[in-house]
Amino acid sequence: MKKDDRFVKQITPKSADFSKWYLEMIRKAELADYAPMKGMMVIRPYGYAIWENIQRLLDERIKKTGHSNAYFPLFIPESFLQKETEHLKGFSPEVAWVTVGGSEELEERLAVRPTSEAIIGNMYSKWIKSWRDLPVLINQWANIVRWEKVTRPFLRTTEFLWQEGHTAHGTEQEAVDETMMILDLYKEFVETELAIPVVSGKKSEMERFAGASDTYAIEALMSDGKALQMGTSHFLGQHFSEVFNIRYEDKEQNLQYVWQTSWGVSTRLVGALIMSHGDDSGLRLPPNVAPIQVIIVPISIGNWKEDVLPAAKDIERELLQLGLRVKIDDREEFTPGWKFSEWEMRGVPLRIEIGPRDIKNKHVISVRRDTLEKEQIPFSELSERIPLVLQDIQNSLFESALKFQTENTHDVQTYDEFQKIMDSQRGFIKVFWCGEPLCERKIKDETMATIRIVLPEDPHDKKEGHCILCGKDSNKRVLFAKAY
Amino acid sequence: MKKDDRFVKQITPKSADFSKWYLEMIRKAELADYAPMKGMMVIRPYGYAIWENIQRLLDERIKKTGHSNAYFPLFIPESFLQKETEHLKGFSPEVAWVTVGGSEELEERLAVRPTSEAIIGNMYSKWIKSWRDLPVLINQWANIVRWEKVTRPFLRTTEFLWQEGHTAHGTEQEAVDETMMILDLYKEFVETELAIPVVSGKKSEMERFAGASDTYAIEALMSDGKALQMGTSHFLGQHFSEVFNIRYEDKEQNLQYVWQTSWGVSTRLVGALIMSHGDDSGLRLPPNVAPIQVIIVPISIGNWKEDVLPAAKDIERELLQLGLRVKIDDREEFTPGWKFSEWEMRGVPLRIEIGPRDIKNKHVISVRRDTLEKEQIPFSELSERIPLVLQDIQNSLFESALKFQTENTHDVQTYDEFQKIMDSQRGFIKVFWCGEPLCERKIKDETMATIRIVLPEDPHDKKEGHCILCGKDSNKRVLFAKAY
Repeated sequence: MKKDDRFVKQITPKSADFSKWYLEMIRKAELADYAPMKGMMVIRPYGYAIWENIQRLLDERIKKTGHSNAYFPLFIPESFLQKETEHLKGFSPEVAWVTVGGSEELEERLAVRPTSEAIIGNMYSKWIKSWRDLPVLINQWANIVRWEKVTRPFLRTTEFLWQEGHTAHGTEQEAVDETMMILDLYKEFVETELAIPVVSGKKSEMERFAGASDTYAIEALMSDGKALQMGTSHFLGQHFSEVFNIRYEDKEQNLQYVWQTSWGVSTRLVGALIMSHGDDSGLRLPPNVAPIQVIIVPISIGNWKEDVLPAAKDIERELLQLGLRVKIDDREEFTPGWKFSEWEMRGVPLRIEIGPRDIKNKHVISVRRDTLEKEQIPFSELSERIPLVLQDIQNSLFESALKFQTENTHDVQTYDEFQKIMDSQRGFIKVFWCGEPLCERKIKDETMATIRIVLPEDPHDKKEGHCILCGKDSNKRVLFAKAY
Repeated sequence: MKKDDRFVKQITPKSADFSKWYLEMIRKAELADYAPMKGMMVIRPYGYAIWENIQRLLDERIKKTGHSNAYFPLFIPESFLQKETEHLKGFSPEVAWVTVGGSEELEERLAVRPTSEAIIGNMYSKWIKSWRDLPVLINQWANIVRWEKVTRPFLRTTEFLWQEGHTAHGTEQEAVDETMMILDLYKEFVETELAIPVVSGKKSEMERFAGASDTYAIEALMSDGKALQMGTSHFLGQHFSEVFNIRYEDKEQNLQYVWQTSWGVSTRLVGALIMSHGDDSGLRLPPNVAPIQVIIVPISIGNWKEDVLPAAKDIERELLQLGLRVKIDDREEFTPGWKFSEWEMRGVPLRIEIGPRDIKNKHVISVRRDTLEKEQIPFSELSERIPLVLQDIQNSLFESALKFQTENTHDVQTYDEFQKIMDSQRGFIKVFWCGEPLCERKIKDETMATIRIVLPEDPHDKKEGHCILCGKDSNKRVLFAKAY
């Protein structure tokens, strides 16, 4: 009862129905599954292994820049959220409330954390007394709950996993520097490890985090032309320190409020990997975060268990010693063709095929997932060649995503053109904007596009123009896109 | 305004008031702090770094034995818990309930997970169809909420962190083997990395996990003579698979219920480290899990920043290259004496002192935290000597805890003797027990001691005797102790 090799034919092509393809990929590649509670998902081992790689690579960077991890409570008393009304207003429609503990009705409702500024602010007010206690550079890996109406696995779910950094500084400049340093760190991390090019910059007031002075974000263009916010870094000013009374005695013994930042990325990044790199045959995972970097498929003909499998195991051992994540698929109940399709669908960057003839010729056939290019690699060159090929796959995925981003970033002159693009291929649209929330909201209402970021000044680009909607003079260039 | 060096004098000696000492250690060493919500704690960076080391070292072992990590939802519908009445009865007094999401009253209450058998059982019933899908070997690192009445940081808190393994197998024997393999893995892990000797064995029916066929545990003796359960491994039989209908088609195409296990350890292990190894001067952390293994204190006299600090930094670099966790304490506002006390209190295994005279003599003074022994180590021998000293500290901490355990495991003949020991030095008491819950409960009511484990058969030990309470013939030897 061998299964046939038409496996991938069961997948809706990405080009035919992006949204359906996305959901099918998640189920078929066993990244995640729907939980029986509305809006919640289970992250399955293959999906979670991607998240573990993301965690490891990002955690290293967070620690190298001087931050430590800690853990704050899941529950936040309602009165804490109420202390900061803007913050509460931003989150209260999304909060899940614990009202009963054991058999007792609670006197005060507890929010299941939608973010941790309030509880962390409360603790910082106890811990920070003197300039000697600063800066406080803490990060937390945790689960977050937001009662979302419309959900989609990895992109927006009632519960998700993330890291949230929360820092306190003695001066405004230090906090601003931290905000920007983390924004750059996120950009470098996502581009290097996830092979996804991003643009970064400040958010407009309308898109700002509830309670922040400034919100910065990295944004990427998915292959359906919609933007995905990949991470945010907030300069909080002294807003929360005033509310939670976080003060320190400076060297001159004056009491000062601290300056704060907060920043985070989430399991949404797994969704970004699917949408940025996937194709009609399935996922294409960048080697740096792929749970399996190399899949070895022995060609199961004749006495393959005696003739081929031992050689395959030698190769596995050799590649494991290089620190690569390798696996042999020696299942008997599937044909090689079926295995090829399956691992292509699951996005393994490189496949190694080895059969009796290859053993005689002392080489293997390697097949890249990104280009499907085949290559003969002699046994003696495996250790040298495979890491280079993986690096090349990592680079090409980035390059091809960058090419897509460039080709889909439009410079438009009229609102008519703007609307036409948003109705068809979408993408980023670069325009001048007067700075008025009124224009921003009208554009959103009419086209569903929002300002993803205010572009930093670019010496090679136009400095002045007219608001795309109202025509007023403007020196504010922004990127619009429809966003997830 | 240099602080004086009488720092540790502020700590309640462990010998004077163990419980007060424990709480003070947690606060002063900045392992954790009380959260403003009853029964909840914040794990501070120093405490969390211990947990991260525990996670890393245990996660490696869990993966090496073939398990993968995944993530299941925080919320479990009440009806899922109700499916298994024994399980529900066990947990319902401890459940925190979410009843409101956003602005809506929920139709069905959601439990904040007190453990995940129910939600995972539900998912396994979807994922497992055929013998080809077995075994399923999944682990989860997650937060858990149990509405506890009496709490103590790390030992029993409303929220805690843990890992929970959940496996499904085709045969009873495989599931039993998994249960025992994990029990052994936990024992080896705790003894090797935490330097805490444990006894392991089956629980009595009264102490069994709600819904399990058999519960096995590792138990350690804390230095106040009380036992701490360090981890449990449950053989679940087909109990949950029947309730959640987890069935597979075997090779003969018959439908069979799977056999399951579940197992976990938690942040309680951090509490165990404090209570097993700490002394009157503070913590004594085993090098394998210490956030800082070596603290370098430059002796700040004269032009120490020019004369001494560069040499200290060279040593730091050399030790970092060996993969050690090293830190220089170059703070100006504290005296060396104050620093010595502080790092002793925080349990750093090894201190290196270096002053102008040491530089002339090309050596450092090292001071072990466990014995306070001093040693001169020539610069040229640092790379060789320091790892050996750290290994020796790891071993001695284990040996001294083992000696304590041996000396405090009592073989008693009469119930009178039993009561006297439980009223004074406590410890483990080894006795025969008739097997009746009635005797077990009476002993508990009268002495507060519970059966920690049923001892496995020991060929060198007595096989038969009389129940310590009722005098009936018995071949069941058990370990009693007062437990946390």
